[in-house]
Amino acid sequence: MAVGEGKLPRLHPVKGFRLGTTSAGIKIPGRFDLVVMEMDEGSSVAGVFTKNAFCAAPIQVAKQHVKSASSRYFVVNTGNANAGTGRQGLMDSVATCRALSELVSSQPETILPFSTGVIGEPLPIQKIISNLPSAINALSEDGWAEAATGIMTTDTRPKGASREIIIEGKKVTVTGIAKGAGMIKPNMATMLGYVATDASISPGCLQGMIELAVNQSFNRITVDGDTSTNDACMLVATAQAEIETIDSENHSHFQTLLDAITEVFIELAQGLVRDGEGASKFVTVNVTGGNSEQECLKVAYIIAESPLVKTALFASDPNWGRLLAAIGRAGVENLNVDDVSVYLNDVLIAENGCRAESYTEEQGVKAMAGEEIVIDVDLRRGDNSATVWTSDLSHEYVTINAEYRT
Amino acid sequence: MAVGEGKLPRLHPVKGFRLGTTSAGIKIPGRFDLVVMEMDEGSSVAGVFTKNAFCAAPIQVAKQHVKSASSRYFVVNTGNANAGTGRQGLMDSVATCRALSELVSSQPETILPFSTGVIGEPLPIQKIISNLPSAINALSEDGWAEAATGIMTTDTRPKGASREIIIEGKKVTVTGIAKGAGMIKPNMATMLGYVATDASISPGCLQGMIELAVNQSFNRITVDGDTSTNDACMLVATAQAEIETIDSENHSHFQTLLDAITEVFIELAQGLVRDGEGASKFVTVNVTGGNSEQECLKVAYIIAESPLVKTALFASDPNWGRLLAAIGRAGVENLNVDDVSVYLNDVLIAENGCRAESYTEEQGVKAMAGEEIVIDVDLRRGDNSATVWTSDLSHEYVTINAEYRT
Repeated sequence: MAVGEGKLPRLHPVKGFRLGTTSAGIKIPGRFDLVVMEMDEGSSVAGVFTKNAFCAAPIQVAKQHVKSASSRYFVVNTGNANAGTGRQGLMDSVATCRALSELVSSQPETILPFSTGVIGEPLPIQKIISNLPSAINALSEDGWAEAATGIMTTDTRPKGASREIIIEGKKVTVTGIAKGAGMIKPNMATMLGYVATDASISPGCLQGMIELAVNQSFNRITVDGDTSTNDACMLVATAQAEIETIDSENHSHFQTLLDAITEVFIELAQGLVRDGEGASKFVTVNVTGGNSEQECLKVAYIIAESPLVKTALFASDPNWGRLLAAIGRAGVENLNVDDVSVYLNDVLIAENGCRAESYTEEQGVKAMAGEEIVIDVDLRRGDNSATVWTSDLSHEYVTINAEYRT
Repeated sequence: MAVGEGKLPRLHPVKGFRLGTTSAGIKIPGRFDLVVMEMDEGSSVAGVFTKNAFCAAPIQVAKQHVKSASSRYFVVNTGNANAGTGRQGLMDSVATCRALSELVSSQPETILPFSTGVIGEPLPIQKIISNLPSAINALSEDGWAEAATGIMTTDTRPKGASREIIIEGKKVTVTGIAKGAGMIKPNMATMLGYVATDASISPGCLQGMIELAVNQSFNRITVDGDTSTNDACMLVATAQAEIETIDSENHSHFQTLLDAITEVFIELAQGLVRDGEGASKFVTVNVTGGNSEQECLKVAYIIAESPLVKTALFASDPNWGRLLAAIGRAGVENLNVDDVSVYLNDVLIAENGCRAESYTEEQGVKAMAGEEIVIDVDLRRGDNSATVWTSDLSHEYVTINAEYRT
């Protein structure tokens, strides 16, 4: 199951960023499962990584490498997360970087490794190393669509997003791909995202941009509330578009570019939710009228992660009682429940602590019938708001996660 | 589905505490759904109530009444939670108390009302009032088993527990019943518990006892992490056993009695989990070696509420990767993952941040085969521990909660 058509949009090439995809037979013979990405010298690279204490080997290596040298290559395998693999896992990630560095005549530290797939199995390092030349051969600025497929695990479809904007009369491109069929699946070592632009951006500004963009996108989605051991998201600026460099001195185009980058991030993040494990609904939870963004987020996440709300969504059941009960346990201090109102796709369903007088079950059923549901909660006690995207909890979610290893 | 046989044990009568059960046809004709409980004058009564901000009407009334007078009666209906019913709901709860008070010639404030069932429907007050005489007629110290059935909603079986202990050469009885097929189901307005003893205990000591007992029992279980709008648990001491009163001056038997009360509470709480919605496994999560009880609880709850862990439990899959990933996101500060070890029914499955060398998949599969699973996590950084009980996440859970209203 997945929500919407989900066709991969046209992914505009980013000058100075090349992707090469191949099949290394890591888990399923013949399937694309190994991707190398190459960026021109002089590119800036920024990243955010999982906060899980059990952080997978490639993430540990990538975090170290990104600090110690200018990155030139990403190498991504699916089918095996190289997580929970101890010392051997670290050695395998380092060996992958070393093998690629020799093939491309670069330093191992310029290479960032990423793995996604099953936890706890040793990385089939020989399969990876022997297929690196084929991935390198495939490197091309037109390689985005193949790479989007090459990083998939339980995803039912590839995810990509792309924008072209004009700055100083010059075309600037932002293109990205992501994988993950849920906010998390530690067993599948979930979410990876790679976004590149040909703009010129200093590393410091780029790190600021990725954190702002992730905060409005990948950090606003949840399928089941877990966070993976392998989550990583990278943003690259190749500096090949002929526009001024954006840095701490020159901020004039920062916002324009950030907006385009954030749009790409949000489209990718929503793509993950639409393809969430067992998803039959795409749900937007808007919470407004809070005293702080933090309390709005708390309420939004409590709703988005409540198994009772999620099963009601699956059943297309306008169950306002479960929504009120979820809001009530969010721990908002001194919440006056009589001030709270709740809308389902613009239908007022609850106010004054109970069902709205104007509400009819018929309205509610109609509001829940579609694949896209918007839940609006107004706390009416402040000026802050927050939005979270999620999916429903279906039989297929249980099937996928109960049968994954067996 | 439910775990184990779950036969109702023998419930010893408590002198001075009578229960009367009848059918008022609130939701299903002919089903027991109305219970009156009567305690002798001079009884002490203590209670704990839901912390949900959307607190149901009867709970609001009960909290007020328990403060303003000595309680003599509980009146419990199932089939309707009288929650999310606004001002009318409050009036209906008060009217229930007034009607009963007239029949038994007591003050309305001596009566505590409880409701459980669907949220947001008006309470069928006439059905309740017209059947109160029949419930009063049935009042008997032997009425525990019928009352255990009379407070059920989606429960597949009644829950009760009973202990007899000897204090000062005299027999003292503790007996209780509870309902709830999950820690929560706001839509079903879940958990209710009633425990009585014939010991003599001052109200202050009794309140202390219930809070200590609840903290080791009902506050240590979770089916899906939600908390209901109607949760309530009451403890009554009728003072009919001829032993000294336990109060702030005389503590000599406090611990003995608290132990018996806590045993009854734990048995009832575990009974709820065993009958948890869709439960096919009863799971004990022990976390030891923490710097504080709080951090042990955090880890235990993250495991117990992780949809990925719960679906793996349903599949009898010894998925240590999901366990490590859950522990890793519990937010334990400066957790050294290499110190953590994880056991499934005494089989060491993970240590040093990865699968234990001694572990074989065969051992794991064997450990997961039974209905009762113990997960032991040792954080190895302190002397504190905590235990939480939970169930798995099955297809039946989704079915029950997706189809409840439709």
